[in-house]
Formats: sequence, C-alpha cells, structure tokens
Amino acid sequence: MGSTGVFVHSRRVTWGETDAARIAYTARFLDYAMEAVERWFQDRLGTGWYEMNVDEGIGTPFVHVQMDFRSPVTPRDTLDSTVRLIRLGGSSLRFAVTGRVGERLVYEAELVCAFVETARMKPIPAPERYRPALEAEAALA
Amino acid sequence: MGSTGVFVHSRRVTWGETDAARIAYTARFLDYAMEAVERWFQDRLGTGWYEMNVDEGIGTPFVHVQMDFRSPVTPRDTLDSTVRLIRLGGSSLRFAVTGRVGERLVYEAELVCAFVETARMKPIPAPERYRPALEAEAALA
Amino acid sequence: MGSTGVFVHSRRVTWGETDAARIAYTARFLDYAMEAVERWFQDRLGTGWYEMNVDEGIGTPFVHVQMDFRSPVTPRDTLDSTVRLIRLGGSSLRFAVTGRVGERLVYEAELVCAFVETARMKPIPAPERYRPALEAEAALA
Amino acid sequence: MGSTGVFVHSRRVTWGETDAARIAYTARFLDYAMEAVERWFQDRLGTGWYEMNVDEGIGTPFVHVQMDFRSPVTPRDTLDSTVRLIRLGGSSLRFAVTGRVGERLVYEAELVCAFVETARMKPIPAPERYRPALEAEAALA
Repeated sequence: MGSTGVFVHSRRVTWGETDAARIAYTARFLDYAMEAVERWFQDRLGTGWYEMNVDEGIGTPFVHVQMDFRSPVTPRDTLDSTVRLIRLGGSSLRFAVTGRVGERLVYEAELVCAFVETARMKPIPAPERYRPALEAEAALA
Repeated sequence: MGSTGVFVHSRRVTWGETDAARIAYTARFLDYAMEAVERWFQDRLGTGWYEMNVDEGIGTPFVHVQMDFRSPVTPRDTLDSTVRLIRLGGSSLRFAVTGRVGERLVYEAELVCAFVETARMKPIPAPERYRPALEAEAALA
Repeated sequence: MGSTGVFVHSRRVTWGETDAARIAYTARFLDYAMEAVERWFQDRLGTGWYEMNVDEGIGTPFVHVQMDFRSPVTPRDTLDSTVRLIRLGGSSLRFAVTGRVGERLVYEAELVCAFVETARMKPIPAPERYRPALEAEAALA
Repeated sequence: MGSTGVFVHSRRVTWGETDAARIAYTARFLDYAMEAVERWFQDRLGTGWYEMNVDEGIGTPFVHVQMDFRSPVTPRDTLDSTVRLIRLGGSSLRFAVTGRVGERLVYEAELVCAFVETARMKPIPAPERYRPALEAEAALA
C-alpha cells in the first residue's frame, strides 16, 4: 500500500515473461496491469473476480484498455503497479495503473470495466455492498 | 494429417513464446503439446473441450504429463506436433505427442487425461458416442 | 489475405485462453493483436521480429496500445484479425487491428511501434529495404 | 522458507490462469513449477537465470519434466511450491517440486536442467562458485 493509501501491487518480473530482445514482452504488460487490478479488488473490495463470478453471478468484463510503454523491464526488476480508481460510473469503473521500478516510470495504463450479471451479460449498477469501498477509493484518486 | 492417418498439428513458433535465451521458453512446450491434443479432440472426436464442458457437462482433466526436450525452437520454426492415442483405458486416455521441425526431433511428451462428470468431478467411462472414434485412433498408434 | 489485399490472420481460440467466466481472458486479446502484427511483418516485409533482432540488430518495441472490446470469444470461434498500417512515420508504425468472428466485431485495437537499433535502443529510420513494402501497405489503409 | 530450510515459493493463483472448467489450466502448472525453481536459483544461488545468461554466458536449459496433478486450484487458493534439489550431477540438476494449498497436495513434479555455455549450447560442469550452495541444497533433500 502506498503512503497515501493508494493500492500498490509489487512483483518480480520472471524469466518466462522475457522475449528474445531480452526484455519483458509487450503483451505481458497487460497481464501486469490486469493482475494489479485483480489484487486491488481482493484488497479494496474484499472479494476477487473468481468469487464474484462463481458465487455471486457478477462479472466485470473489460471494455477498454490503453497503455503507454515508457521503459523496458527485465527479471532484474521488481515492478510496482499503482492502481487508482479514477472514475466511478453507474456500472463502470475506470482505473489508472502506473508501473514503476523504483523511481523509473515503466508503463501508464487505463482500463475500464463494467459490472454485469453473468447469466445474461447485461450491465448492472455497481452492487450496493461495494459502494462504500468504491467511493472511498474514488476519493483517493 | 500424417501419411498414416495420425493427427499432426502445425504452427509457427511466435516471438512472444521466446525468452531471453532466444529460444522458446520451457513452459511453452506444455502449451504446444496441450494445444495439439486439443486440436486432436476437435479433429478426431468432432468436439472440443469447451463444447464437452459447457454443453455436455463432461471434463477431461489431465492427471499426468512428462516431457523430454530434444532441441530448441525459435520463431524461424514451424513446429509439427504428432498426436497418438497410445492407451485407451476405461475412463482414461494416454497420448504420445512428438514435436518436430522438419526431420529434427524437438520434444517427446506423454499426457494422460480422464473423463469426468464436471458437476461432481467424478471419473466416468469414456462416453459411448466417442468410443468408435477412440478405438479407431488407438488402433493407429 | 482480405479481398482488398489487407492482411488477415485467422486462428481458432484455444481452451487455455479462456477464464472462469468461460470466455477468452481480457489480457489474451493483446496476444491476439500482437500475434496478428507479427504475422503481418512476416507476410508483408518478408521478415519476422526474431530475424530482425537476432540477424540485423533491429528491434521494433511497442510504445502504445489501445483496445476496445466489443464482444466475447470462446473456443467455438475462429478469430480473424485484420491488420492495417494506418500511419507510416519516420521511424514509427501505427497499426489498426480489428478482430471479427464472421461478421461479428470482437475487438478494435491500435498499436504503435518504433524501429530501434537494439545495441543502444535508439530510434532509427525505417530501414530503406522495407520502405517500398511499408509504403504499399500504408496506401492500402 | 520451510521449517527444515527447504525453499518454498508462495503465490496466489490468478483469474487469468483459470480456464472454462473454472480451475487453473493444466499448462499453467508447469509455469508454477518453473517459477518456483527460478526463485530457488535467486534465493539459494544468489543469481537468476537472466543474470546467468546475459552477464555470465551460462544457461540452464531443461531437458526433462514430469508432473502428476493431484487436485485442482482456483484463485481462492495460495499455492505453496516446495523446491528440493534431489540430484546434483556433474552438469545437471534434478529438482522435486511439490505444490500444496495448506495441507492439500496439488501437484508433484520433477524437473531436470543442465548447465551449458550459451555461446555453443555445450554442457559444462556446474560452475565452481555455485558448488557450495548446490551441495548444501542437495544435502537438505
């Protein structure tokens, strides 16, 4: 957790994520950002995508992703991905995810997901039981 | 399809599958072998794992895998993976999967899966409707 | 290849690409788009990222990606990804990649990469030997 | 680290590792075992595969893998993978890797790699500077 209460997910880059250019492969950065957002749900809403889907019949499919790659990473690096909820819509969430190695900026991403009822894949409002946590997070951003 | 009727799945190695040693990463070879077996189901049984699971409530979880790595591959290579059903048990299937680039041997694998009812994850006999195709394949091996 | 000469990469979605929501996982779509662009290089420039990196000392790191997800895919689907070179800069390439299953729109992406000299990771102009092919592709878009 | 000094790598299973059967996909287990062995090198030899390859010109390609799958995992689970060096050969290492969730056995694997000089992909003896640590680890198994 960052000093301002913002969620940070840290993990070492692995050998299997590199490519023949000897840096982490482009497509792995979306895995990094998605993994950070997944941990944010577990940490801040107290539930994961798996539990929401399987136990509650609620999904959060992503509708938009954008990423800017600022510097490469290798398995020498531990990547810190900071997750901010920058827009809380009626049924959608927009996250800003920023990856750093120490002070060095690695990537900047925005990801948008929407709450749906999985049975019919229809959008639903953000569930009431998550609203207080969602509003607290939106206030941090 | 091989000249003897044995199933062969071919595909180019991709950049994202390489690692910093500039060859395909070890763990990707299990993806190659699994992908070849997945295509074998589609080609030989006329149905895929997805359809079996979602439509029929039947799973084929893998219980054992072994692999010997004989030579490296890179994105210069098109990998041909030959799939043979070498043992047809009551509820289990043992596959031999062999990867080659041209004449060059790349990997040799054996994979064992078992038919289960997904609702309770209990083993079931190989479904009757697949027996003729399974027996024809076992006879090829 | 599409009817207008535009490059199309087709491949079946695999079981291993799905997640517990029973659709392909969000992060796999960047793999799909990257794989399509990789094949575009092989088909249109006559060389792959591996050969450019290892043999020529030239890299094409990606600096920007954006994706809109329009509809889900499963292993029932064969995904056709169309690749257009929509901007040919001095050292950068901007691609529009559109994924469809039949007529159904699945994803729309833009990806930007830049030619670099791998030894120093410095931008370089698009190599002369690729300019005619690059210009022909840009004219198609 | 385990109570007997044996190395244990722990991490939560992720959503992206599941498949449409709502359990982690078979091929991901080789990623889990490889990741555990990678961390073992960093922890016990004080160097990673990346540093060995890029800085020292030494590789450790895997020549054999076998895995038995004992029970499924989901993102509800934190997987503990224990790594033991069960055979220290002249140039090869055989690892036993066992995955558990709490007391529950998840997978049992053996993986064999060999030290090579990367320039010519020729086997070399385990480097002298790593022998004391390797022998200490082999004594634990």
